[in-house]
Amino acid sequence: MLSGLSFINNQWVAGEQGSFTAINALDHSVMAPQFHNISQAQLLQACEQAWQAFLQYRQVSRADRAAFLSGIADELQAREAELVARTPLETGLPELRIKGELGRTVGQLRLFAGNLRRDDDYIAQDQPLPERTPLPRPDLKLKTIPLGPVAVFGASNFPLAFSAAGGDTASALAAGCPVVYKAHTAHPGTSEIVAQAIEAAIARCNMPAGVYQLLQSKDYDISHGLVQHPRMQAVGFTGSYAVGMALQESIRQRQQPIPFYGELGSINPQLLLPGAVSSGKQGDNGNDAALAATFVGSLNLGAGQFCTNPGLWLVSESEADAFAQAVAREVEHAAPQPMLTPAILSAYQQGCARLHRHATLLASGQGEDKRCSTQVFVTSAVEFMANKALHQEVFGPAALMVTYKDTAELEQLLAGLEGQLTASIHGSDALIAANRNLVESLSYLVGRLIFNQMPTGVEVCDAMMHGGPFPSSTDVRSTSVGSQAIARFQRPLCLQNTPSTLAE
Amino acid sequence: MLSGLSFINNQWVAGEQGSFTAINALDHSVMAPQFHNISQAQLLQACEQAWQAFLQYRQVSRADRAAFLSGIADELQAREAELVARTPLETGLPELRIKGELGRTVGQLRLFAGNLRRDDDYIAQDQPLPERTPLPRPDLKLKTIPLGPVAVFGASNFPLAFSAAGGDTASALAAGCPVVYKAHTAHPGTSEIVAQAIEAAIARCNMPAGVYQLLQSKDYDISHGLVQHPRMQAVGFTGSYAVGMALQESIRQRQQPIPFYGELGSINPQLLLPGAVSSGKQGDNGNDAALAATFVGSLNLGAGQFCTNPGLWLVSESEADAFAQAVAREVEHAAPQPMLTPAILSAYQQGCARLHRHATLLASGQGEDKRCSTQVFVTSAVEFMANKALHQEVFGPAALMVTYKDTAELEQLLAGLEGQLTASIHGSDALIAANRNLVESLSYLVGRLIFNQMPTGVEVCDAMMHGGPFPSSTDVRSTSVGSQAIARFQRPLCLQNTPSTLAE
Repeated sequence: MLSGLSFINNQWVAGEQGSFTAINALDHSVMAPQFHNISQAQLLQACEQAWQAFLQYRQVSRADRAAFLSGIADELQAREAELVARTPLETGLPELRIKGELGRTVGQLRLFAGNLRRDDDYIAQDQPLPERTPLPRPDLKLKTIPLGPVAVFGASNFPLAFSAAGGDTASALAAGCPVVYKAHTAHPGTSEIVAQAIEAAIARCNMPAGVYQLLQSKDYDISHGLVQHPRMQAVGFTGSYAVGMALQESIRQRQQPIPFYGELGSINPQLLLPGAVSSGKQGDNGNDAALAATFVGSLNLGAGQFCTNPGLWLVSESEADAFAQAVAREVEHAAPQPMLTPAILSAYQQGCARLHRHATLLASGQGEDKRCSTQVFVTSAVEFMANKALHQEVFGPAALMVTYKDTAELEQLLAGLEGQLTASIHGSDALIAANRNLVESLSYLVGRLIFNQMPTGVEVCDAMMHGGPFPSSTDVRSTSVGSQAIARFQRPLCLQNTPSTLAE
Repeated sequence: MLSGLSFINNQWVAGEQGSFTAINALDHSVMAPQFHNISQAQLLQACEQAWQAFLQYRQVSRADRAAFLSGIADELQAREAELVARTPLETGLPELRIKGELGRTVGQLRLFAGNLRRDDDYIAQDQPLPERTPLPRPDLKLKTIPLGPVAVFGASNFPLAFSAAGGDTASALAAGCPVVYKAHTAHPGTSEIVAQAIEAAIARCNMPAGVYQLLQSKDYDISHGLVQHPRMQAVGFTGSYAVGMALQESIRQRQQPIPFYGELGSINPQLLLPGAVSSGKQGDNGNDAALAATFVGSLNLGAGQFCTNPGLWLVSESEADAFAQAVAREVEHAAPQPMLTPAILSAYQQGCARLHRHATLLASGQGEDKRCSTQVFVTSAVEFMANKALHQEVFGPAALMVTYKDTAELEQLLAGLEGQLTASIHGSDALIAANRNLVESLSYLVGRLIFNQMPTGVEVCDAMMHGGPFPSSTDVRSTSVGSQAIARFQRPLCLQNTPSTLAE
């Protein structure tokens, strides 16, 4: 059923530059079929076609764009069985998660479709003042228009919700921008199935050829060529800091600056105020064990492969022992889990080894060949502040518990942290109110500030901010999740003194 | 009355790195006093103090920020006589213009103050859904918070409205961001008077030291050091393409990417549809002469020293002769005007010489030593499309009339233009409706699309967009004029499950 082809200019074409295969995430075996790497010539064709599509697609009405997004959602739902057969093998993620993520992906598309139908293009209007002196004021309308073709890169850890028809694609298409999608090499088959769904929606909704294109390639030059192409007007990326910075460097070599929306990860500090553990606000049971179960549960979700994974736990010295013991009991029972790719598993093991060199291992979960084991380390605030190696994200179910003496030391620690996607503050409402200064400091460190909840589970809604100060993202003014994500791919146009004959 | 000092950390201090003087724009003589260049050490002190101020200023309420902006407006108005005595000498701009520009500057400050009082910080809210399955939805609020200290560069051509307390300063202060203002070396005395007004407002409103700082320096290294300083979180600039690109290069060397809002100028195409000249829609007189008077009037406004100056006039071959004759009659009577600086006058003369090498001089206005003369050149669409030298902005009262054969050639010409701040379409409403394709193409070339009006005269209001596709600006998603300008210096923060004890 899978062809290994790319989808360029509404045709399925074979890449001309060799091939690669997906790896089974459960047993690390090679999976059929071969996926063909596209050539630079094919890349140029796709980018040029995206521009031709833009000339048409930017004139498509909001209602028709909404119908297109809904059509993609319908076609995706019709392919649930195909996805459930392929995606768990490519990613190691269980069927239930894939079904849930499909629901989220479909929900995102329908959210944007609904907003397109509900809202209009206009931001503001100033009525003409023909009698104003010394000069009359003309009629002025401010509306949004799409930026142009958008390059989107798939994320390894969300094969559906941040990939071929994920949040970046949905928000760009909603904005009126064609998408050139570079599939993640970890789940090329999943991407092909999703692109087939989009192809069907293009046909059903009579959308222009090139409004969505799927590129398969394991060659980094294709990614860099894509972001440097003069027709591309924005880039959406979710992935590692290293790859994000390499793409940014390529984008900077362009003559025309374009926005780069890179979401690069985070260690998501969990701040337990002094008294939070013993008062047990978190959870319903009101005790150390419940809090520890909540923390370890969030840490293990999806094998810790979330950018909102809680990687840094800040606990008062006076409560650390009790909490650590409860955490250790939870961790020791944690089952081993497959990871997204062999490379991610290997990087996780190296990350844990690095933490082990610089901190004390508190507890580790059960292990197994080709599976990761949960690991929690512990160190002091003094050690943490002195050692930047401890600040680096370890992608997977590893956390570092840091014990602090008092809130003064905690403030000092927070001041030395880099920008984060999220942080949580745990403690009673009264305790939080008594630490307003900490709340204020954290607000400027993160994109989303959470009270008494874990950061995993990013709601797709109007009020979400998924992004944060650098290096957690490259553009703190934008979100990659939720309805505000569309703003990344639009810009204002002022219309002055528009004749009535042009009224829409 | 003028000290030549810089205003750092609420103190007037002498720069430690030599000095420079303002030049009288009317007779090119040197003016007292000496302005002292700050040192790198003084720059670092200012940037660090801006951060300290940010820690306070970001907590100042909207109402108190509004009072501060209104206070600056009051203090500026109280200094009108001082400004009218100094600014015309530094800029060559007449007293009436300075008074008008002061009114605009004060109006901008009051617009932002009014919006601060009218609006709140919240963008969106999702109500909690505690009963939702499989997972409850938490309470989510999305609000704006300020980015941090902003570096602002003064523009030569707006000594008040785009300078020390101009649009960038007003929108940054409104957003909650301290401003480190690098004065333009062409009007340092004006900047000092304005900074004195801000100093008085700081004292009156009890604002933190460092919320606004004025740097005097003729040393480029200070500008580059300012934008590279890790405490700076955004840059506002209005000026030439060359200086803008040099600053962008410095900004790219930072570890942390920050937004650079550079407004770099434009030739602002004036598109006369076939029949526009003879039907004479523009103006009330309905004839060639009225249209020519309108065009030449806009061209000469402020000696053509506006980024919205109409520099490119596209006229149908069949009507070009009649229009050219009417334009020539207007131009020949145009009085010579002083320019902002001797360097700008010299660059203008070189720009006219370049146009003269590549196109035919249609008419030139009256000339005088140390004054510019209006110049209008003419060429064909074929010549224009083949010669990129004709696409470059000539800053001053020079325009290039380009004659086209038909709308197909016009489409082709527009497709070869770089991004522009504005364009105007002139013609009857019926004619415009019959050329929807041109309207559509132009929409994606500009930030503001104007019908039957000239681009000069940028309204400060809610629906304004002053910016455009590169190279007219470095960030097409933003405007530097109007109430949306504040969005450049803010970013979203999501608050999840906020305890009621923290309610504002």
